[in-house]
Amino acid sequence: MGRWQPDSYGRLQEAALALYSERGFDQTTAAQIADRAGLTERTFFRHFADKREVLFGGAAILKQRILEGVTGAPVTDGALDAVARGLDAASAMLGESRRDLTRLRHHVISANPELRERELSKLADYAESISAALRDRGVGEPQATLAAETGMTVLRVAMQRWAYGSDGDLGEVMQDSFAELRAVAAET
Amino acid sequence: MGRWQPDSYGRLQEAALALYSERGFDQTTAAQIADRAGLTERTFFRHFADKREVLFGGAAILKQRILEGVTGAPVTDGALDAVARGLDAASAMLGESRRDLTRLRHHVISANPELRERELSKLADYAESISAALRDRGVGEPQATLAAETGMTVLRVAMQRWAYGSDGDLGEVMQDSFAELRAVAAET
Repeated sequence: MGRWQPDSYGRLQEAALALYSERGFDQTTAAQIADRAGLTERTFFRHFADKREVLFGGAAILKQRILEGVTGAPVTDGALDAVARGLDAASAMLGESRRDLTRLRHHVISANPELRERELSKLADYAESISAALRDRGVGEPQATLAAETGMTVLRVAMQRWAYGSDGDLGEVMQDSFAELRAVAAET
Repeated sequence: MGRWQPDSYGRLQEAALALYSERGFDQTTAAQIADRAGLTERTFFRHFADKREVLFGGAAILKQRILEGVTGAPVTDGALDAVARGLDAASAMLGESRRDLTRLRHHVISANPELRERELSKLADYAESISAALRDRGVGEPQATLAAETGMTVLRVAMQRWAYGSDGDLGEVMQDSFAELRAVAAET
């Protein structure tokens, strides 16, 4: 592939995930990723600050989308419904990703303790911001924290079901996972 | 205090948490902890493998107690009820800790990103083991993962409410937090 081919971002992402999966995240260099993508290392660093950003880029925008969903929820929404609106907004963004790349990302992160901790830390950060947004809506504690953390559980479960499952778009899987959570909580 | 005074474990733990809180975890040495406790560094290392173990010691036993609670739950228990039994068992163990030391521990971990990631990682590990125990009881997916992760959310929230609250033993706060979670999930 020539270096002027469009979508160098997508090609670098695909090459990086393939290499992280094949030889491990720590054993992969930016130069190898660029080489696999048929691009230069300079192009890699034009798109990504470092190797990690291939996995965690977009986190700030995603968080913003989720928070917009939560704060924009009708005032009549309960705490968990407001969180579900935030995750609907997240689904619209995350659902654009290719399933095979989402699976690879999951595989790479699961295999590396440091990346797993980073991923958990990212979700905990989302949860803290969401619970603050819920408190701004008048939700008390511990309800705000419980709803926010529960939402992150649903997000993780839904992402995995969607990435490894065969049909349904992410938004549907997210809604279904919320319904499953509510059913689990209702069962005695 | 003389070096032969009983409960050197408790004194070291108290000294460590006070120092971690005052000057930060990274800035504290084992020698300083021993000194504050009026004990030798050798005694410190007889009780703890390293500085981190003051914060994370007991995690393996706690996990075992939780799993015993889950696997020993009556077969008629739903997934979340089985998790609640596990957390009842955990409460019996964790509730023995002093509240002021639990608050200090929480404060120290919150202030240090690396320790926070370690704590999240520990809870994620518990959740994985709990969901495996639930699958062994015949609970399917995604219900097993949703119930296990939800249980960890309740554990975190309850620990914090108990440590910073004024009354009620941990077991009661845990049960109350489960009830709050169920109420949040039932609300539409």
